[in-house]
Amino acid sequence: MKWTQQELDRLFNPKVVAVVGDKKDRDYNWLRCCSSLQGKVYSVQIDEKEIPGIEAMGIPNYKSLVEIPEPVDYVIVTVPRAVAPRVLEDAIRKGVGGVMFFTSGFAETETEEGVRLQNVLKRMAEEANLKIVGPNCMGIFNPKVGLRHSQDQYYGEAGNVGVISQSGNLASQVAALSSVHGIRISKSVSFGNGIVLDAADYLEYLGRDQDTEIIVMYVEGLHDGRRFFNILREVAVRKPVVVWKGGLTPEGSRAAFSHTASLATSPVLWDSLMSQCGATKVDTLDDILDTVTAFLHIKPSTGRRMGLVATTGGRSVSMADAFAKEGFGIPALAESSYQEYSSSFSSIGASFRNPLDITPYLRDQEMVRRILEILGADKNVDAVAYELNLGFLGRRQESFLDNLVKSLSDYRETLPKPFFAILTAGVREKEAVDVRQLLFKNGIAVYSNFQRASAAFRRIVEYYANLAEMDSA
Amino acid sequence: MKWTQQELDRLFNPKVVAVVGDKKDRDYNWLRCCSSLQGKVYSVQIDEKEIPGIEAMGIPNYKSLVEIPEPVDYVIVTVPRAVAPRVLEDAIRKGVGGVMFFTSGFAETETEEGVRLQNVLKRMAEEANLKIVGPNCMGIFNPKVGLRHSQDQYYGEAGNVGVISQSGNLASQVAALSSVHGIRISKSVSFGNGIVLDAADYLEYLGRDQDTEIIVMYVEGLHDGRRFFNILREVAVRKPVVVWKGGLTPEGSRAAFSHTASLATSPVLWDSLMSQCGATKVDTLDDILDTVTAFLHIKPSTGRRMGLVATTGGRSVSMADAFAKEGFGIPALAESSYQEYSSSFSSIGASFRNPLDITPYLRDQEMVRRILEILGADKNVDAVAYELNLGFLGRRQESFLDNLVKSLSDYRETLPKPFFAILTAGVREKEAVDVRQLLFKNGIAVYSNFQRASAAFRRIVEYYANLAEMDSA
Repeated sequence: MKWTQQELDRLFNPKVVAVVGDKKDRDYNWLRCCSSLQGKVYSVQIDEKEIPGIEAMGIPNYKSLVEIPEPVDYVIVTVPRAVAPRVLEDAIRKGVGGVMFFTSGFAETETEEGVRLQNVLKRMAEEANLKIVGPNCMGIFNPKVGLRHSQDQYYGEAGNVGVISQSGNLASQVAALSSVHGIRISKSVSFGNGIVLDAADYLEYLGRDQDTEIIVMYVEGLHDGRRFFNILREVAVRKPVVVWKGGLTPEGSRAAFSHTASLATSPVLWDSLMSQCGATKVDTLDDILDTVTAFLHIKPSTGRRMGLVATTGGRSVSMADAFAKEGFGIPALAESSYQEYSSSFSSIGASFRNPLDITPYLRDQEMVRRILEILGADKNVDAVAYELNLGFLGRRQESFLDNLVKSLSDYRETLPKPFFAILTAGVREKEAVDVRQLLFKNGIAVYSNFQRASAAFRRIVEYYANLAEMDSA
Repeated sequence: MKWTQQELDRLFNPKVVAVVGDKKDRDYNWLRCCSSLQGKVYSVQIDEKEIPGIEAMGIPNYKSLVEIPEPVDYVIVTVPRAVAPRVLEDAIRKGVGGVMFFTSGFAETETEEGVRLQNVLKRMAEEANLKIVGPNCMGIFNPKVGLRHSQDQYYGEAGNVGVISQSGNLASQVAALSSVHGIRISKSVSFGNGIVLDAADYLEYLGRDQDTEIIVMYVEGLHDGRRFFNILREVAVRKPVVVWKGGLTPEGSRAAFSHTASLATSPVLWDSLMSQCGATKVDTLDDILDTVTAFLHIKPSTGRRMGLVATTGGRSVSMADAFAKEGFGIPALAESSYQEYSSSFSSIGASFRNPLDITPYLRDQEMVRRILEILGADKNVDAVAYELNLGFLGRRQESFLDNLVKSLSDYRETLPKPFFAILTAGVREKEAVDVRQLLFKNGIAVYSNFQRASAAFRRIVEYYANLAEMDSA
């Protein structure tokens, strides 16, 4: 379907929203979600038993979309599938901006009726050039304008990360976890079966969207692979695109068909296309969060020579192994650095190789800062990673942690090289959840183990290296 | 060095322990650790300034090991490296059971003096046939007899998991995290440079130890690879041996040399030897915990056909992908199962493939149990994995969770096939830490994501498949 940026802007930033078919049974969830909308909300409901509850919330109700006394930008439809075509017909007559079908039960059910109804919706929308989001999805989340698909979601905040997800659950998870990870969402769309607008359309749209600086995608299937990869190649030059493909195994692919009626893709072909397009391939929700925080909080770099700081000798070995497995070098430091270390620190020798074993100085913030400064200034080192081990810190006062985070945040800002942290916890995992959030809030990318840290950093280094290669070609 | 099971039993279950060189500076940490010992503790300290503090704790102090008025089973040495040979000389004269050197600064420093002193200790011990644990290590942890190397460690509890670690930190971490994961340790040893007794010795010892049913190892280097692999092959037939090799990358290997003076091993050769020996190879601390809980809590099985239960369609796809990547099949269920599902549940169709999408029934424990029962009885399914999604449960009463855990624990016990859980949390990670602990306490293996669950289960299935192959050969 042809569309303009302006047309999709209308959908993603609606001033008037209509909800068709919301019910007391579900506690009017969709209408309640709209309570945060910076704009007007209407209900469409013909069931006399449902109407009083809706009007009690102060929301005007009409018997049909066409009766609403002003133009409607975005329609949320939650009616039984058999009624979906009639609602769509009204939407077309009304000339709304677009329709989101939460309604499911279409091709993903593998039933004749489901497939038939999906084809009816698709044909109607295409003939009328009406935008459909979905069906079988959660639709758009735009915190800036207060458009949500869950009452738990935040609003009133502008962000820079765009989310395109074929799974409603994944879209919800990224939204929910975003604030924990210091990620702010610009626009998010869950698009389910994607029968009219699909992954390629949303990617093209967010690729041009000024607010969106990083794009995250979860896709299960593509309707037009060639078009998708052409757009992906174009967009990835301008901003990072992080892509998770669900259903790359035959077993996952069967599940994907049941979920969004998506067809199989060869994993080898997929990997090669991702890499040719300069997109960043990931495989899990954790990968997504890790990679986005890396893009957001770590300085762009193509260098692969790490300066590593760990707690204990054993963890130095694990840290070195983890980064080496992701293709990073862990070079000897410059002679001048070792001289500086020797003059400032008593514990020389084994402790001041690379990784540096920081154990004796863990609780002395000035020493930690000094160790990081020397490492950061070393000419053999392109990037610095620091393990903060909660178990070894013992029970410090809260001000200790605050000062440490302030010092690290300051170090990160002044260092002209990438810097990030690994916060390991041992048995203090619950406390670690809070400390990681504190670090994110202070602009520091933090990971729960060496593997996740090194994999996330490798992905962004690859992205920038790819960009540099294309620039020089 | 030659040793008998009885000799090492004396070391691992000491009745009399002597601590040489403990100091106020370190708050007499080693002596305090011994407060839990079911036996007698002596101090050896010549510094007049240190003695009053020691005696104030009620611990008798002597100027030399030989002055202690009864036989000594285990000596903890924390003196400067230069003094180590003199302490060893006394230990030999005294005829103690063995000596653990916490003292470091030997070959791992790559200094002439460090190497020389290490060689002196080794030669002295070998000539006298005296057992040395270490140097550069934390030594033995035996909760049953109250022998510890950290005051945080628990005691007074017998266990069945043996730990052999070249890294003191890893030994401590496993001990600390063990109770969280429902793991009880039989005997643990951190052995650092392992100059007299090394990995092979401890493996042979714990291989024969009646209390130890599973062995966990972290090694950085081997002094006699052939002997180690011969023992590993023998032991692994009798009990699972989970092995993490640190320093398999060139970078990690350099760090391992600085840590425990260990030399490099080829990763390809290592993998192939692990597999030939029937050992279970892991790469991280999380792997260790995941694998041990699998061995402890999941019924032995060689079947690879999974019955999977997930929350939401999107997560069904991820779950299927994760298990398929580890080589599991996710078959269609038997026709009779689908018939049972259709008769009991309204939401048929897409939701009752495999993985089963349990979303509509999440909060109905009887329905959950029924779904699991039908799946567990299916002839196409060898094992059942169940995703419990905390985010989707909403805020339930505590009794809800208790009942759920009870029901799952009962299901696990009656099902003649392997069963385990995945507890995903979204933003409720802190709560999840507690719920996972509750599940472990009830004998249910639980994992924080699909990848960790499928990898852990794959490792134990491989172990049992290997055993079965050897039996039939």
